[in-house]
Formats: sequence, structure tokens, C-alpha cells
Amino acid sequence: MTIRQHGRFFVAVAIAAFVVPASRPSAQSPQAAVAAADRWETAFRELPAPANIRAYDERMSARPHHVGSPYDKDNADWMLARFKEWGWDAKIERFDVLFPTPKIRLLEMVTPTRFVATLEEPAVTVDPTSGQKAEQLPSYNAYSSDGDVTAPLVYVNYGRPVDYEQLERLGVSVKGAIAIARYGASWRGIKPKVAAEHGAVGCLIYSDPRDDGYFGGEVFPAGPMRPREGVQRGSVMDMPVYPGDPLTPGVGATPDAKRLAISDAQTITRIPVLPISYGDAQPLLAALQGPLAPAAWRGALPIAYHIGPGPATVHLKLAFNWDIKPLYDVIARLPGSTYPDEWIIRGNHHDAWVNGAGDPVSGMSAELEEARALGELRKQGWQPKRTIIYAAWDGEEPALLGSTEWVETHGTELEAHAAVYINTDSNGRGYLGMAGSHTLEPFINGVARSVEDPEAKVSAWKRLQAATIAQGTPEERNEARTRGDLRIGALGSGSDFTPFLQHCGVATLSLGYGGEDDSGIYHSIYDDFYYYTHFEDTDFVYGRLAAQTVGTAVIRLADADVLPFDLARLAETVKEYVDDVQALLKRRQDEVREHNRQIEDGVFAATNDPRRPLVAPVAEAVPPALNFAPLQNASTALTTAAGRYQKALSNASARLAANTATVRAVNAKLMQSERQLLDPAGLPHREWYRHLLYAPGFYTGYDVKTLPGVREGIEQRQYKDAEAEIARAAKVLERETALVNAAAADLERLARAVR
Amino acid sequence: MTIRQHGRFFVAVAIAAFVVPASRPSAQSPQAAVAAADRWETAFRELPAPANIRAYDERMSARPHHVGSPYDKDNADWMLARFKEWGWDAKIERFDVLFPTPKIRLLEMVTPTRFVATLEEPAVTVDPTSGQKAEQLPSYNAYSSDGDVTAPLVYVNYGRPVDYEQLERLGVSVKGAIAIARYGASWRGIKPKVAAEHGAVGCLIYSDPRDDGYFGGEVFPAGPMRPREGVQRGSVMDMPVYPGDPLTPGVGATPDAKRLAISDAQTITRIPVLPISYGDAQPLLAALQGPLAPAAWRGALPIAYHIGPGPATVHLKLAFNWDIKPLYDVIARLPGSTYPDEWIIRGNHHDAWVNGAGDPVSGMSAELEEARALGELRKQGWQPKRTIIYAAWDGEEPALLGSTEWVETHGTELEAHAAVYINTDSNGRGYLGMAGSHTLEPFINGVARSVEDPEAKVSAWKRLQAATIAQGTPEERNEARTRGDLRIGALGSGSDFTPFLQHCGVATLSLGYGGEDDSGIYHSIYDDFYYYTHFEDTDFVYGRLAAQTVGTAVIRLADADVLPFDLARLAETVKEYVDDVQALLKRRQDEVREHNRQIEDGVFAATNDPRRPLVAPVAEAVPPALNFAPLQNASTALTTAAGRYQKALSNASARLAANTATVRAVNAKLMQSERQLLDPAGLPHREWYRHLLYAPGFYTGYDVKTLPGVREGIEQRQYKDAEAEIARAAKVLERETALVNAAAADLERLARAVR
Repeated sequence: MTIRQHGRFFVAVAIAAFVVPASRPSAQSPQAAVAAADRWETAFRELPAPANIRAYDERMSARPHHVGSPYDKDNADWMLARFKEWGWDAKIERFDVLFPTPKIRLLEMVTPTRFVATLEEPAVTVDPTSGQKAEQLPSYNAYSSDGDVTAPLVYVNYGRPVDYEQLERLGVSVKGAIAIARYGASWRGIKPKVAAEHGAVGCLIYSDPRDDGYFGGEVFPAGPMRPREGVQRGSVMDMPVYPGDPLTPGVGATPDAKRLAISDAQTITRIPVLPISYGDAQPLLAALQGPLAPAAWRGALPIAYHIGPGPATVHLKLAFNWDIKPLYDVIARLPGSTYPDEWIIRGNHHDAWVNGAGDPVSGMSAELEEARALGELRKQGWQPKRTIIYAAWDGEEPALLGSTEWVETHGTELEAHAAVYINTDSNGRGYLGMAGSHTLEPFINGVARSVEDPEAKVSAWKRLQAATIAQGTPEERNEARTRGDLRIGALGSGSDFTPFLQHCGVATLSLGYGGEDDSGIYHSIYDDFYYYTHFEDTDFVYGRLAAQTVGTAVIRLADADVLPFDLARLAETVKEYVDDVQALLKRRQDEVREHNRQIEDGVFAATNDPRRPLVAPVAEAVPPALNFAPLQNASTALTTAAGRYQKALSNASARLAANTATVRAVNAKLMQSERQLLDPAGLPHREWYRHLLYAPGFYTGYDVKTLPGVREGIEQRQYKDAEAEIARAAKVLERETALVNAAAADLERLARAVR
Repeated sequence: MTIRQHGRFFVAVAIAAFVVPASRPSAQSPQAAVAAADRWETAFRELPAPANIRAYDERMSARPHHVGSPYDKDNADWMLARFKEWGWDAKIERFDVLFPTPKIRLLEMVTPTRFVATLEEPAVTVDPTSGQKAEQLPSYNAYSSDGDVTAPLVYVNYGRPVDYEQLERLGVSVKGAIAIARYGASWRGIKPKVAAEHGAVGCLIYSDPRDDGYFGGEVFPAGPMRPREGVQRGSVMDMPVYPGDPLTPGVGATPDAKRLAISDAQTITRIPVLPISYGDAQPLLAALQGPLAPAAWRGALPIAYHIGPGPATVHLKLAFNWDIKPLYDVIARLPGSTYPDEWIIRGNHHDAWVNGAGDPVSGMSAELEEARALGELRKQGWQPKRTIIYAAWDGEEPALLGSTEWVETHGTELEAHAAVYINTDSNGRGYLGMAGSHTLEPFINGVARSVEDPEAKVSAWKRLQAATIAQGTPEERNEARTRGDLRIGALGSGSDFTPFLQHCGVATLSLGYGGEDDSGIYHSIYDDFYYYTHFEDTDFVYGRLAAQTVGTAVIRLADADVLPFDLARLAETVKEYVDDVQALLKRRQDEVREHNRQIEDGVFAATNDPRRPLVAPVAEAVPPALNFAPLQNASTALTTAAGRYQKALSNASARLAANTATVRAVNAKLMQSERQLLDPAGLPHREWYRHLLYAPGFYTGYDVKTLPGVREGIEQRQYKDAEAEIARAAKVLERETALVNAAAADLERLARAVR
């Protein structure tokens, strides 16, 4: 790094401190704190080396390393040795979980012509690890049920509830049929779940070339896109109900844990499910007749997309080894000097579907390089004030197994000690993705201002701001220019942050670079070192940037005296969500009124095409008005309390250094601030998810639903439930408000005592 | 038709009369007029028979009948005989025009591999006329220049100016290259014109399966979409400069007309152009490298779309027979009883690219059936008050030849006598398309309310309203429900209305049904009777509806005492256009300011991807403010005058029957009302187009530019020109205002005289 760049970093930090004063509060004088923090941060950011990250990636992706494979354990042992070598107190924690692998996979079309799917990804000559057939898991969807079904095929687009609404208008049912859905637009486990809800007896999921094949560019190995025979493996467990071992919901899968019978596990699919390539899908789709698929449903295969049912009839036979397999989480610790009982936790998973040089090793390697650099910093004399825990999770791919079982096992300790969890997963070239708890929005914006993008030579923050300006709506553009901080996303699911945030109430960030390279090797045998070093972050400079970014965040979180939680930002975000759900209800009311009016006015009848007739729509009840007042009042009270806290913090800041008791008292409350947003009773029909502000959608899987109980109640037309959820959400906000007021009172007492 | 249906028609007419009082003014008492008109209209609408339309279509599409072909003349003679048989005074008018046909067509890829394009549409067994090879015109673009070029290929998407702006950002030039554009999004003649402006030496135009091939459904003969070898023929003459014979701009191509040398004709392309199938295009496109095409540019071929230039290099060799060929316009006349010097003209072309059962014969056959029915009505005692002229134009396909030469030949008579021109072209299943002079908007809405859709059993108007409600934005939906009349489109070009409206200033309507069937046989050998009777208006009930609709319009126009021109609607529309061009300038100013700000802020630099670098954008001058006051004032004055006219008409209506002199005086002015919107000096750089309110876009071809001089001045950054055009447009509106005031004064005098 050059002096010029340091200069820019100082400026960026100064701006951040000005715009968001709470982002780096400190018990020292602000100037001294910035200077001290900057000394270690600057030293830290010099340490990560692309060559190291490259070497870790090469080593860990050298062989397939899925759950239960020899190389999965080998990687865990190797990482354990590295952590120890770098001065960490490290160990492996083992869990035993249900992890099915395929025994029989058969897919054939039996009418109108016969075709047997290959279900095989071929080795590629130029790619040395693609031929490791003996160790590769075949292509399959984990936690599909066993099954042997023969039925007509129906194309269901992405297989979301909205797609089935359209099928209904078209007069097509999947009852007794096998649904074929394309990957994308929802988490894959949603597809068989919704298909089964509509009566399908089986489900195929294929990768359409429109979504990650040749439509996006050359296919592997000429380019990064999915080749004709490439298949996306992946879990189809019903994780929006609960993630982790299906046999031990809510408790760690330790040797002595009480386990459900497999037949009692709620999260295994009700129908057999198999992922296939577009090479295997094309003959099936080409054999469909029935209505032409709506334009938005058509992919990039050179065929006319029809919906069916039939005349294509397919035979799908699947059987699995329902084995218990060991998980190896690597857990490494640097003890805190001042606040050892406050934990900053950071994790990435290490298991892959096959070689996984991108997913997850690109992220895991950056984490390892952070660990090495923090160890190095420690040798130079730095000691974190808080305890830092670095984790390498096993079993993320099947079901966030390693993180979930660890969180469930250590729940009580986490409730007492966990301050923040930071997650990463795959890493790539491009822009910083920032999502998580909105208390941390100003904090992570400050971090992003302090690291430099290796391509654009501006801060990661500036580059992200530029992209928001370049691609945003006029409103987004204006906000990106004037708000000071960029908005961070709310978290749904899809990686190991879920148990921390949504089950345990730990303030969480999910970080990672990406967005410049399109690709189609996800969860295939081609996600390997050859691929990654030809088409992704080929020189690992974004691996270095990830290590610099997350390491900087960890150092700041570990060393801040008062935890940098911005409660006003939380309150602002809550208010937006409260406005959102009201707008959602109004929109639904308007839509239903318009729908009913069109029926009354004969609009549907007058526009129906007799050659492509639609089922006549029926009038719906207009959604009732709901009493949002409890939520509005709770949101207002939280805003007031948060304002009081931020003001008290500002007033007290000069006096905090000499009053560690107050700092401890405030931090103890701040650590609980995310916990207040939990309700132990959980969300409706899925009590494992306890966070009432953020959850993965029951029908989206990856995508978040904010105020999930309220929002999904409205979306799913359960208006009584929605109203009850308004009250419950108001209650947790009231608890949060009380906590914030108590923290403010601590600070105000300090100010009074000194005066 | 049942009594119930009659009942609905009466109701519909009553509503129309209430909402738009000016739509059917009359010198009789309104009630009596409605009753009289309804008697003949009702009788008329019973007459058209699908079986007749089917028979005409079968006869006229039995053999290829392009300009200069034996069957083109045969059809003209046959129609002449029919008109005469039905009691019309009919004749053929002949013109002699330049019409090139291919002598040499060669397209081959020479690097990186060799491929010779087939350029051949194969016969299809089930389709009897597809094998008439001896009479078929081969696939080509008429008025392409001769040429023999070998050059690297560049993919230019739709080949519009906006596509070249994107190419520039991508750092790709077509200078010295052959551009390959896909059909669609602009009129085809724009593609070689813009390619040549950017330095291309040749142009290929192909039909991407995304736009009218298998993406839209099964291909012919299994379905209506374009098969792999199907080619869209068509003219590429620079018709936005002038249509018609390239050698006789502005004058009729009569035997004695002075003709330009071919080398002096402005409208022949500057580079050789050839249309090809997607079968022929795929190997060429697949051989391109260079940047990946932007997502919106990618079609439905199973390839990654790249832009080039090269490594594909192609050799294109074209030579044409530059022959003078005869045109045969069939012109039939029913003399008017009361106002024989006021002409209602109605036309459809009869020439096709090959068999043309859809384009144009489906429209021509409906017109013939109207002519038969009007003849029948005359036998029953009806006589039109105005003279009705029915035309079957030849040579529309190459360049609106038959209509343009006829209008240019009869310009003086038309200026004196033409009241309204109604055009149709192809006809199909679905919704009534209504476009034209906005003085006629209430009138044609009234007609649409009087005819019944054969599928939905509601009026064509009601069905169109329903579609607008079903598909519109909330604003459009609200307007469709509350405005009374549906908006009609403004006319650009693409059929025979252009010389009437834009050269001669005749109030014009363009009508036709369609929109329910997607198709991909346009301008191919497959647009034939087999195709039409399998995939389009198979039982010709929409042919009947077209005849009922246009015939009703013709009867009302011919028999109305005061011509049903709504000047207030014209004024309202003009005001909207005036607002539009101001909004356009403001949008351009905002865009340029934002663009410059992003450059200043380093947004482009910060988001540039070094693996896919873009050319850095440069700051632009912000468009200056323009003086719109003359146009605003002229628009206001027209609104005032039109209000005065409509009020005077309403006040005078009961007294008009007894005062034919006033009626004649008013009609004489109304007939000139569209003429006032012309400026004899024409539009900038294309004086043939004289209408200052409606013109085809110089760079769109089909699509209209309203207030074209002003709008294109702004779009093309010629702000001085735009300001001059504001003044010119204001002048024609002032002339229009004077005319409208004079017509109002005529009516007011009548009211005063009677009082």
C-alpha cells in the first residue's frame, strides 16, 4: 500500500466518523482511539498475501471434500494444524448427522419416445481434478426422499407459488404428475416443497442455459458457464422450517442427543427430487405439449417451451443411503484481554459438494489468511480486547449442519457471550456484499471505507457507491449520494449465519466480494482450482481484499470499548419495515379490488382467447384492515429510545475511558440487543426461527422476509395470524426499547456523576 | 345477428353519442340521422360473408403475385371484373417503376471456417403452394445496392442508433465491416442505413428465433412460427426520405414522367443488404468472438452471442436486375349523390412478396367483400351522399409504390376533393387497431362501438377497452374506464396511408384486427392459404368483422352531412404533443447532467471491469433551453378555436338540415383541416414529408414521430433546428386555428340568421 492510499483511508475514516458518529465509539478520546486502531489495522492490512490464499485454495480443493469424505476430515485436520501454528487455541468439534447419499438414480422418458438421462458430468481434459470420479458425489439433491414414480411431466417454470397461480389460470394441474422446474429465482428446496403441496409425485430440477448456461457466455472449459452436462447438486431439505440435522431439531447432534426416527423428520422432502443438466432436460421438455409456456417462463433451449401435462411421461427412481456421518467443525480462539467474555465470532464453511475451489474454499482461504495475519499481529504485540473465535464449519452444503449443531450445542454460552457473528462463504471479483443486522450498518460502512479495491484503486465503499449510482433508480442514486451510509441487506438464509442470527439472536454480518464474473459451475464437479484460477479471482487479490475487510471488522469489533451498535439505525430500519408491511396490505387490497372489478366488468371474458382459453378468475375477499397501531407505537418508542441512547453515548464519550464499569454495563446490554428481537415461541409453524425481524421466506428460502410473521401472514392471506404477529412483533420491540433506555440511563448516570 | 345483439348496438351508439357529441353530427335531427344511418348500416353489416372472403383469399393467394409477376396483373384484372360486377365504376391505373430483382445472391463465411449460406426456403409437403418455385421471388431485400464485399462480421443487435451507442461504449466499430442485424424493433430499411452511416460495407439482416421463431411456439408447418430456413423478404429503400418510385420523387411514375438516373436516386441503399434465415445466421454468429453481447441483445439461438469484429469474415456478393416494372392499381368508384366532390377513399394493397394470403390478401379480401356489400346496398336503394373510391394498390411491398404514384399523380384533385382516406393491410384474429388523424378519434371510437367481436360477443370497442384495462398501467386503465373514447395511435409509416396523410394532408385512418396469433411467416413463401387457414383467422370471421367495421365507417363518412371531424380532440392531442417535446428536452437535459456528474464523480472509472473494459464516456454539453412559447401559444389558440367550433356546431345542429350552403361551406373547410398541418417546404432533409404533426421517424421507419421536426431536432441534438421547427409548427397550427375559426363563424352566422 502507498502513502497516497493511506491518506485516502484516513479521509474516509474521518468522513465516516463525521457522518455516522456512532460507528466507532470508544472509551478513549476519539482521536486517540482512531490513531491506535489505525496503527494495528494498518499493520494488519499489510499482511494478507494472495499467494498464501492461492496455496490454501489449491490444497483444500485438491480432492472432493463433502461431508463424510476422507478429504473433508483431512482438510479439517490440516486447518487445525494451521490455526495452532499461527498461535490460536484450536480444536475440532465433532457432530454426527443424517447425511444421505445416492444408491439408485434413474430417470427415463417412457412416452412418447424413450430416453434415458445420463445423470453424469464428464471429465474435461484440461481440468485435472474433474476426473476424480472415485471420490466425487454423483449429482443429486440431498434429503430428497426415496421414491419410484412414473407420471406425466409438467413444466412449472421456477416452481414458486406464483408460478402455480399461473398454471391454475392455464388450467394445468401437477396432481399426480412429475414437476420439472428450472433452477433459479428461489432456493431449490422450495421447488419440491411447493410441487408436493400441489400434488406432484416427483420433481426434477434442471439448469436452463438461459440462467447459467450458454446464454451467459462460453461454457466450461472454454468459458465459465455451465456446460451441457453440468448439474447443480444441492440440498432440498425444508430449511425454512429448520436447518441442521433433521433428526435433532433445536439441539446439538452430539453422541448422546435424542434423535428422531427418519420417518418423523419434518424437513425431508415428501417426494423424490433429482437435479439434471440441460442436456438431459432438453429431450423431456421438447416432448411436452399442452399450452405454450408464458414468455417469461421460456429459457434458452432451442425449443418451443410447452407446459404439458405430457405427452412426455417419465420414470424417476431414487434410493439413498440414509447414513449418519461425522462433521468436523474447526474452532479456533484468541483470548480477549479486557472483555474476554465478549465474543466476536467469524466463520466460513469448509465442506464442498465436490472440489469447491470457489464454494466454499475461496472464502475459507481468505478466512485462513486473516487468521494467519491476526496471529502475526499478536506476535507483534497486539492483543484483542474481546475474545475472537474463528470457525471453519463442516456440512454447510447439506443443511448448515456444522454451524447449526454448534450453535444448538453452545446456545447458553452464546446467549451470554456472543457479541457479533461475521459470516463469509464463496468470494470473487467485484463488489462488497454487505448484509446483516442493521445495528451494524454504520460500522460496516466504515470498514468498507477503509479497504481498497485492487482494480478500481478506490475504497470498496466508493466502488459500491459508484455501482449503486450507476445502476440505481433515481431515488437509490440520490440516497447513495446523500445518505452517508449505503444500505445493507437484511438476511434470509443460504449460509451459516442463519443459526446465529435467527435462532440465537447474535448480531450478524454476512460479507463477501463478487458480481463481476458470471458463472455456471455452481455445485458441479467443475467448481475447482482450474476453473477458479481461469475465470474467477485468478490472482486472489479479492481473496486478499476479503481478508483485509473482514479482518479489519474483527479488529475493530474486538477492540472497540463500547460495541459499535447503532440503535438509531435499527430504529430507522424497523420503521421502514413497519411502513412496508402496511404498504403491502394496501397493495394487496388494491389488487384484489381491481381484480374483482375486472371480473365484474367482464374484462377477463372479453379478452379470453378461445384458442388459448384461460380458467375464469373468481372474485376474492378484499383483505381486511389490520390494526398496525401496536407496531407503529412500538416503532416510535424505539426511535425515541435509540435517539436518547445515541445522544447519551455522544455526551459520555469523553468520560468512558475512565469508567470501565459503565462500559461493561452498556456492552452487556448491547450484546443482548439482538436477542431482544427473538421470541422463544418462534415464527408461526416454524418455532426454530425465533427472530421476529428477519427470516428466510417460507416460500423463498434464500430471500429474507422482514417482519416475517406479519408479512407472510398478509402474503398467505392469514389476516388473523398477521394481526397476532403485529402484536408479537410490537412486544419484542417494546423489550428492545426497554433495553435501549436502560443502556442510555447507564450513560446518563455517568454524565451526571461526572458533572 | 340476433335482436339481443342489435339491442346492444343501439345502446352502444347512444353512449357514444352522449360521450362524444361530435362523433356523428348531422344536418338532420340527431335522432332521425341515427335512425336513417342505422337502417343502412344494419343492412350493410348483415352482408359480408366469411365464405366469400375465404374464396377471394384463396383465389388471390393461389400463386406468387409480386410486382411485375403475371399473377399480379391477373389479380388486378380479376378484381377489376369483380368491382364492375358489383356495380362500381372501376378501372386500372398503370404506373412504371424501378423494381429490382436478384440476379446474384452469394453469402459465404471465409474464415475461420468455410460455410456457404443456402439462401433458400424449402417447400413443405403439406403446403401445396410452398413448392411454386418457378414463380417465387427468391429471398432478398429490394433496393439493396449491388455489391461484392468481403469483411469481418460485427453483430449490431437491431441496428438502431442506440445499438451503435452501445457498440461505441464497448469499443467496437463497424467501419469496413459487414454488420449483421436482427429483424425487429425498427423498420428493416433503418438497419443498412445506420450501418452505412457508421462505415459498414455490407449488411445482413436475419430473423432471430427469439423474435419470430421457435421461442414463440412451434415452427411452420407444425405451428405458425418461422422455421429454420424461413426468410423475411422486404424493402430496404430509405422510405423515411421518400417512398414510391426512387426515380420519380414527388411526381407520378406515368409514361412521360421525368426520371432520375438510378445513380441519382437517394433512396437506394449505399451498401449491399441481404436477409437470411436463422439457419444461415447461426454458423456466422457462432463464429464471432470479441465482447459478449449485452444481455438484451442475445436471441434464442443456442450459442453465446458475441459482437466481433470477426474472426468470422464473410463474403457477400449481390447483383440485381434494375428493371422498370408495371404497377396495376385498381380504382373503383361509387358516385356521391349530394356531395359528389367530397371523396371518401379506402384502400388496401394487393401485391405480395410471394403468395401473401395474410399480407396483404386477408385485408384485400375484406375490402372486396365491403365493395360487394356496398354494391348490394346500392341495389337496395342506398346512395352515398359523398363519392366513395375503393382502391387496390399494387407495389406496396417494395415501396408503397402504387399508392404513392397515384397520390402524386392525382395530387391536385386530392387537395380539392379528398375528405378521408381509410387504409387496411393484413387482417387477423383479435383486437381492432385504430390509428390516424386525431380529428377522427371520436368518430372511429363510435364505429368500434357498433360492430361485434365474433369471439367475445361484445363490441370491438368493448373488447379493446377490456384489453387496455387488463394490460395497461394504472393511468391507462383509469383513462380507458373514464375518458369515453379510447386513444388512437398516431401514424408513422409502413403501409399505403403515408402518401395520403403525410404528403397530401388527407385526414386518415388505419384500421385492422389482430394481436391474438403470434406468427413467423411474414414475407416468406409460407404466408399462404394453407398457413392462413390453419393458424390465423381460419374461418374468416375477423375478415367479416373488418369488412363490417370499415364499411360502417365508410357509410357514416359518406352520409354524414357535416363531416365528423372533432377539432377539439385534435387540439387536445396537439397540446399533449407540445407537452411531450418539452418533457423530452427536459429529460435529455437531466440525462446529460446526470451523465456528466457521474463522469466527474468517477462513477464510470470505479465500476469499469478490467476484464470487460468499456470506453470511458465523455462529458456532453447540456441541451439548451428552447423557446417553446410560439408552440404553446399556437396550441392554446387552437384549443380556443376548436372549442368555439364544437360549440357552434352543437348550437347549429338542428338548423343545418335546412341550410345546405352552410353545410357545404363548413365541409369545405373541414376537408382542408388536415391540409393546414402541412408545410410545402416539408420536413428538414426530407421535403416529401410535409405533415408537421405526424411522420415516420427518420431512424425508426415504422414508428411515428409526432411534431417530427421539433422532436427529431432534440433527439438528434440539433437544437437550433429544433427551435426553428417550433416556429414552423406554430405557424401551421395558426393556419389551422384560422380555418377552424372561419368554420365556427359559418355556423355562428347560421345561428344568428335564424335567431
